[in-house]
Amino acid sequence: MQKKTNKKSRKKLNTIPGTPIYTGDKDTDPIIITHIEYNKSCFQENVYKNLEKYKKNSSSTSVSWLNIDGIYDLKVIEDVNQHYNIHPLVLEDILNVSQRPKFEDFKDYMFIVLKMFQYEPETFKIYTEQVSVLLFENNVVTFQEKEGDVFDPIRDRIRNVKGRISTQKADYLAYSLIDAIVDNYYIILENIGEKIEEVEEEVFSNPTRKTVEKIHYLKQEIIQLRKSIWPIRDIANGLIKSDSPLLESSIKPFLQDLYDHTIELMDIIESYRDMTTSLMDMYLSNISNKMNEIMKVLTMMSTLFIPLTFMAGIYGMNFKYMPELEWRYGYPLLLSIMMTIAIGMFFYFKRKKWL
Amino acid sequence: MQKKTNKKSRKKLNTIPGTPIYTGDKDTDPIIITHIEYNKSCFQENVYKNLEKYKKNSSSTSVSWLNIDGIYDLKVIEDVNQHYNIHPLVLEDILNVSQRPKFEDFKDYMFIVLKMFQYEPETFKIYTEQVSVLLFENNVVTFQEKEGDVFDPIRDRIRNVKGRISTQKADYLAYSLIDAIVDNYYIILENIGEKIEEVEEEVFSNPTRKTVEKIHYLKQEIIQLRKSIWPIRDIANGLIKSDSPLLESSIKPFLQDLYDHTIELMDIIESYRDMTTSLMDMYLSNISNKMNEIMKVLTMMSTLFIPLTFMAGIYGMNFKYMPELEWRYGYPLLLSIMMTIAIGMFFYFKRKKWL
Amino acid sequence: MQKKTNKKSRKKLNTIPGTPIYTGDKDTDPIIITHIEYNKSCFQENVYKNLEKYKKNSSSTSVSWLNIDGIYDLKVIEDVNQHYNIHPLVLEDILNVSQRPKFEDFKDYMFIVLKMFQYEPETFKIYTEQVSVLLFENNVVTFQEKEGDVFDPIRDRIRNVKGRISTQKADYLAYSLIDAIVDNYYIILENIGEKIEEVEEEVFSNPTRKTVEKIHYLKQEIIQLRKSIWPIRDIANGLIKSDSPLLESSIKPFLQDLYDHTIELMDIIESYRDMTTSLMDMYLSNISNKMNEIMKVLTMMSTLFIPLTFMAGIYGMNFKYMPELEWRYGYPLLLSIMMTIAIGMFFYFKRKKWL
Amino acid sequence: MQKKTNKKSRKKLNTIPGTPIYTGDKDTDPIIITHIEYNKSCFQENVYKNLEKYKKNSSSTSVSWLNIDGIYDLKVIEDVNQHYNIHPLVLEDILNVSQRPKFEDFKDYMFIVLKMFQYEPETFKIYTEQVSVLLFENNVVTFQEKEGDVFDPIRDRIRNVKGRISTQKADYLAYSLIDAIVDNYYIILENIGEKIEEVEEEVFSNPTRKTVEKIHYLKQEIIQLRKSIWPIRDIANGLIKSDSPLLESSIKPFLQDLYDHTIELMDIIESYRDMTTSLMDMYLSNISNKMNEIMKVLTMMSTLFIPLTFMAGIYGMNFKYMPELEWRYGYPLLLSIMMTIAIGMFFYFKRKKWL
Amino acid sequence: MQKKTNKKSRKKLNTIPGTPIYTGDKDTDPIIITHIEYNKSCFQENVYKNLEKYKKNSSSTSVSWLNIDGIYDLKVIEDVNQHYNIHPLVLEDILNVSQRPKFEDFKDYMFIVLKMFQYEPETFKIYTEQVSVLLFENNVVTFQEKEGDVFDPIRDRIRNVKGRISTQKADYLAYSLIDAIVDNYYIILENIGEKIEEVEEEVFSNPTRKTVEKIHYLKQEIIQLRKSIWPIRDIANGLIKSDSPLLESSIKPFLQDLYDHTIELMDIIESYRDMTTSLMDMYLSNISNKMNEIMKVLTMMSTLFIPLTFMAGIYGMNFKYMPELEWRYGYPLLLSIMMTIAIGMFFYFKRKKWL
Repeated sequence: MQKKTNKKSRKKLNTIPGTPIYTGDKDTDPIIITHIEYNKSCFQENVYKNLEKYKKNSSSTSVSWLNIDGIYDLKVIEDVNQHYNIHPLVLEDILNVSQRPKFEDFKDYMFIVLKMFQYEPETFKIYTEQVSVLLFENNVVTFQEKEGDVFDPIRDRIRNVKGRISTQKADYLAYSLIDAIVDNYYIILENIGEKIEEVEEEVFSNPTRKTVEKIHYLKQEIIQLRKSIWPIRDIANGLIKSDSPLLESSIKPFLQDLYDHTIELMDIIESYRDMTTSLMDMYLSNISNKMNEIMKVLTMMSTLFIPLTFMAGIYGMNFKYMPELEWRYGYPLLLSIMMTIAIGMFFYFKRKKWL
Repeated sequence: MQKKTNKKSRKKLNTIPGTPIYTGDKDTDPIIITHIEYNKSCFQENVYKNLEKYKKNSSSTSVSWLNIDGIYDLKVIEDVNQHYNIHPLVLEDILNVSQRPKFEDFKDYMFIVLKMFQYEPETFKIYTEQVSVLLFENNVVTFQEKEGDVFDPIRDRIRNVKGRISTQKADYLAYSLIDAIVDNYYIILENIGEKIEEVEEEVFSNPTRKTVEKIHYLKQEIIQLRKSIWPIRDIANGLIKSDSPLLESSIKPFLQDLYDHTIELMDIIESYRDMTTSLMDMYLSNISNKMNEIMKVLTMMSTLFIPLTFMAGIYGMNFKYMPELEWRYGYPLLLSIMMTIAIGMFFYFKRKKWL
Repeated sequence: MQKKTNKKSRKKLNTIPGTPIYTGDKDTDPIIITHIEYNKSCFQENVYKNLEKYKKNSSSTSVSWLNIDGIYDLKVIEDVNQHYNIHPLVLEDILNVSQRPKFEDFKDYMFIVLKMFQYEPETFKIYTEQVSVLLFENNVVTFQEKEGDVFDPIRDRIRNVKGRISTQKADYLAYSLIDAIVDNYYIILENIGEKIEEVEEEVFSNPTRKTVEKIHYLKQEIIQLRKSIWPIRDIANGLIKSDSPLLESSIKPFLQDLYDHTIELMDIIESYRDMTTSLMDMYLSNISNKMNEIMKVLTMMSTLFIPLTFMAGIYGMNFKYMPELEWRYGYPLLLSIMMTIAIGMFFYFKRKKWL
Repeated sequence: MQKKTNKKSRKKLNTIPGTPIYTGDKDTDPIIITHIEYNKSCFQENVYKNLEKYKKNSSSTSVSWLNIDGIYDLKVIEDVNQHYNIHPLVLEDILNVSQRPKFEDFKDYMFIVLKMFQYEPETFKIYTEQVSVLLFENNVVTFQEKEGDVFDPIRDRIRNVKGRISTQKADYLAYSLIDAIVDNYYIILENIGEKIEEVEEEVFSNPTRKTVEKIHYLKQEIIQLRKSIWPIRDIANGLIKSDSPLLESSIKPFLQDLYDHTIELMDIIESYRDMTTSLMDMYLSNISNKMNEIMKVLTMMSTLFIPLTFMAGIYGMNFKYMPELEWRYGYPLLLSIMMTIAIGMFFYFKRKKWL
Repeated sequence: MQKKTNKKSRKKLNTIPGTPIYTGDKDTDPIIITHIEYNKSCFQENVYKNLEKYKKNSSSTSVSWLNIDGIYDLKVIEDVNQHYNIHPLVLEDILNVSQRPKFEDFKDYMFIVLKMFQYEPETFKIYTEQVSVLLFENNVVTFQEKEGDVFDPIRDRIRNVKGRISTQKADYLAYSLIDAIVDNYYIILENIGEKIEEVEEEVFSNPTRKTVEKIHYLKQEIIQLRKSIWPIRDIANGLIKSDSPLLESSIKPFLQDLYDHTIELMDIIESYRDMTTSLMDMYLSNISNKMNEIMKVLTMMSTLFIPLTFMAGIYGMNFKYMPELEWRYGYPLLLSIMMTIAIGMFFYFKRKKWL
């Protein structure tokens, strides 16, 4: 994420503000433009290669959703501009894939940027994709970096002309899209939560150097998620507080629900942060405990045998006159003394609770 | 708790917002619907299997409390909807057992979600149950995940037609229910407090690896409690600030009292957090102290005997010409020297405060 | 403190809100009711066993102060209620000795709860006592858990009919009582400050396991004090912001002074918190330093003697053909080599700054 | 940076407030004054040695940008004062190169102080330069400590009379300059981000004493950057909130964009802070891990050989009567016993997971 | 500082609020009262022993500055009270040398308390002195604990009837005094900054036990400075927000400048806090590194020589039948084996990166 942010700045240095420049990775996949138009009774879906044939919907009886997968083609963006007359800074933000999630209320339209996460179970990685939503009176335009999103359930509902969505205006469609993205965060957080439990297990049973790396990467992921989710609070709040005619009053409870969800998400993330910090403490204390255990073994062995070895060394000396060496029972006596010392040591360790 | 949150998201992905879906564990116990109706002078209590015979109370002279234990049956929820005409998002929140505690003021009714804790002394575990409260003008409807709650003292008062409660409106009943749940948190916190004192004792007297795990789990529990109790502040505040006609002015001091209690609960939780952090520090310092003690023993033994063993080694060599070996008093002389060194070491350790 | 909080909750579970129940320890001492009435020119003091003979002062020319030591007798509380007509929640708060400090403005009277600390020099312990203050137009009523308080200087002034206090209204008396309690906190904090300096001394000179326990208990005490003092800020602020006719405008600078004192107290407490944290760091680093010192001695001894002992071991072997053993100067040569190695080691340690 | 701050204070002590005194390093380079005047259709650029020939632009059809590189010459500052009639405190702030970034709105002009960073790839260092911007109705005056800045792209656009900038007023020019500085921070942060990744790599693979120094310096750099970037939030906010006629309404979306960028920069810096803290934890745990590994080797060697050496020592004693020495198979028997003990130890270590 | 705070409380316990009692150290130096009166054209300076001859200046054409060094004489304070009619709480605050810095706006005058620091280079200590400033319409009265302050540059300007100060009113004089005190903090912070760099140097090159004590004392100093500087923010803010006629509108930019300086001071202090925390981490990691280094030496020596010593011990045994002892080349063979083992160990250590 940082990398992209930086790429942006490098390219942007030579530009004036408001110049739309794509900052993501160039895709070789073709841009896919999907246009869905629906109302209470009917439904129509088209896929375009470019926007030339597309006309802006100004009928108040149906809702139009234009989705553009792939934003590396300036031509398409300019066509959108021509159709909808958008502020150049908005175009720039759409193309800048490291844009912070935000909400802006222009009089004729609203502009919302969000991050959509995709967890790929095969690679165990989380991928980020930027989704920009433009809400007009009867139109919603969405921009995604590439194909594949979390909007399929919404499409199904529209296609089947069933449920609340078909009877509602464009504001409800926009809300549904945002809600789908936010709901998807729960899955990502579930994934993080499972990883935390896994690492917790590892910390308790068999902590290794790999464990601390895992905790470190978990922390990094949580920091990244936090950066993406935190601003959504402001977006939801901005939508609730907005008195724009684009939002009907019936949408407000839904927006409040969205706001509650982001608060809940932040609660979960904060508790994950606390948990990883606690795990790190656990890990460090476990290492110290292990060290203590190792040191105990070393100290016991040394404390036991060093004096005995010294005594053996004494009677290994070659002095001419060492009367003990001549004693008949010198050797068994010494062995008994050594045994006594060893037993004494044993009880000393017992008292010290080293055994 | 995380797990449930995640389950929810998975199921919900295929749904549009406002679709009520139960996210808790399916219970085989039957749903129990209890209806209590009372006023200053009389009291009536019925148990239903379903809501068909039940009629919404619209008389202004008595208060009606409908309690539903078990929320996994969509049929009942739909009946409630039919009786009371509730927003679909409210139904969704009632069924979503991982809902964050919250308060929402619809014009005709108020909606409050809370977490009720139950400490089971046998298993030493804390169980969470979601309680949803709907407050209408003369009706209170509560939803619980299963049978068993903290409302028995309230039921007793109503049955005995004694105390303030019988003379008050539905708002006072709703307040009493919330107050009972909040009061119950003190018992849970007392439990945590006792566990903290126990672990403190352990840290001071005999810290083991188990101790650090206990501290870790205490921290986890405190994080979970914090997540459940913190939002109640906003609920109490929302109720106090509300100018809804559903709340009479005489209820305000009670709500203020409720608010004070949540502040106090948060104070206690925060001090518990600080205490567990301090315990962890204590534990780590105690491990280090133990290590130091072990190292001291090792070092003393080694420092004492290593030079002596070396000297014994010298006179254990087999050189042809070692004049000392021939001395008449070589052996006792060496023993005296060794004794002197040992005594010197002893005083060195004394000075270093290792003894 | 936690314990009491919990006792409360247990008892309260079976009660409806607003039921006054004493939550402190039952005292066998009798309740002492002191009534002081004074104005510019005269002064009167009575001690009652019960409140029957007492009449509420409604004259605007004199101030009446009713002090009740011992709050375990419900009868007295009910009498107060009868005399002053207080909200049941206030009575409940007076009796609940784990009540968080708070301020509430009822129209006819104000209610303030505070914690009074008493440091007992003999036992080195800090005792907490709850003081509740009720301010009416010409009456002040105070409740204490037991005899003994910090109000004697105020009583002296009133008795001597000297100083500002005799010329002022009840609001000034109430302020003076709060101010006396807050001023007393400085002594408690001085005590903590001296303990911190003592422990600091100990950490620098001779840190032991006892030291870390002392730091731990200091932290606990600071956490408890913080919980008691922090809410006073809100109390002072509430009094300043209040536009109640009970408070004359001339009292405002004094309340502002009170507010400044609580801010200063919080500053001191926060700096104490930082200091104890810093002391813990110091302690841990000192333990590590000690460990290093011990390890250095062990390593020096081992590094010096292990190779020499090995060499002695070589020439203690009994091989038939070991030419060195036959050399005339083998023994002194080996001793010289050993000496050389020892000197080399010495300079190596010097270079490593271990000596 | 601290150093400069302090120099300032020393010099300033003998002065009254509002006395302009240069606090940076004296440069031997001459002051360079560049004057650019432009409008929709034409463009003019002059370089002066002093300001005598320069006249303030009061025509409303063209925008004038006066840039002064080198602020150590009081004469020039006084000339600017004479031309524009600036408050003495503004002059003082311009010359004080350790001024905190700030925005002040005087009625006739606005004053903005910013920090411009320059990363020198050869020395791997970040250099700070103070840039002061004065915005008048048709004039922008900028002061820099020395030649070389991040404004070249802006100059190019003006020279080429292309893009939005030529058609806009002085407020857009001032915005463009601030935006260029803020955009440049991304490059600096990219640099820090790369260093963090580098150190992370080092912490995982081969942490040395140098690593911890690098983390320390990274932390210092982040603290410094934070101090410079944090106030820009207030600047952007102040500009947005300002209702000065100097700012046209069309500039507001651009200022909002600037504000969003500073929020994003702060997000990045905060996540860098978290990362370096996490790296330090990682480093410390890795050191502990290394220590454990070392201790394991030592303990294994000692535990293995100390008892064996003791046994060899026993049979190296010179007692007259040691029957085992006479046994025919005493020697191989002892060797077998030793081997058995060694194998036993091996399995003991295996079970302890030390191998 | 704590000590003084506590002394205060003890003495104050027997007093009613508003009783002026000096809480500092009694000085034997006489009180020095300096009176400076000046306007645009003339200047007059007198030194009094007491205030009897002094008359309050009520002329609107000249500014009067009364400075009192030494506040232990209640007589003088009472004279000031008689001259200026000040609230008793103000007198109490002036005498209480542990007063928290604060600003209070009485209608006829303003009251400001500040801390003045003096760094004594000989003793390397920072001394605190309380300065109280009273601002009337044409009078400024200042109280200091003893002779010696940071106001000499201001006196010089007034004496020389030069600069802005002579042409301004009393509010500008009061501002100048506050500004002089705040500017002086930069020098104190420079001093702290230099100490931090010194300790940083020490931590990197040769950390000892003294180093950690230095870090501890630096932290303490920063905590104390923080406590003194933080409230000045509120003072500056209060002055800016004040609509008192005592402050002319022309003073507002200067007050804003003062506010900016306190923000900058807080920034510096916060970054110092972060730096000392980082230094402590550095120190701890360096101790751990040193320990590792020591352990490595010990482990290498032990690992190398313990097996070799064992082998020598084997062939030092006195068994009758040890065939190897009889071998012609037994001794050189064993030496070769030992050499091989030693070389093997060497490469093992190399691989482990211990060498």
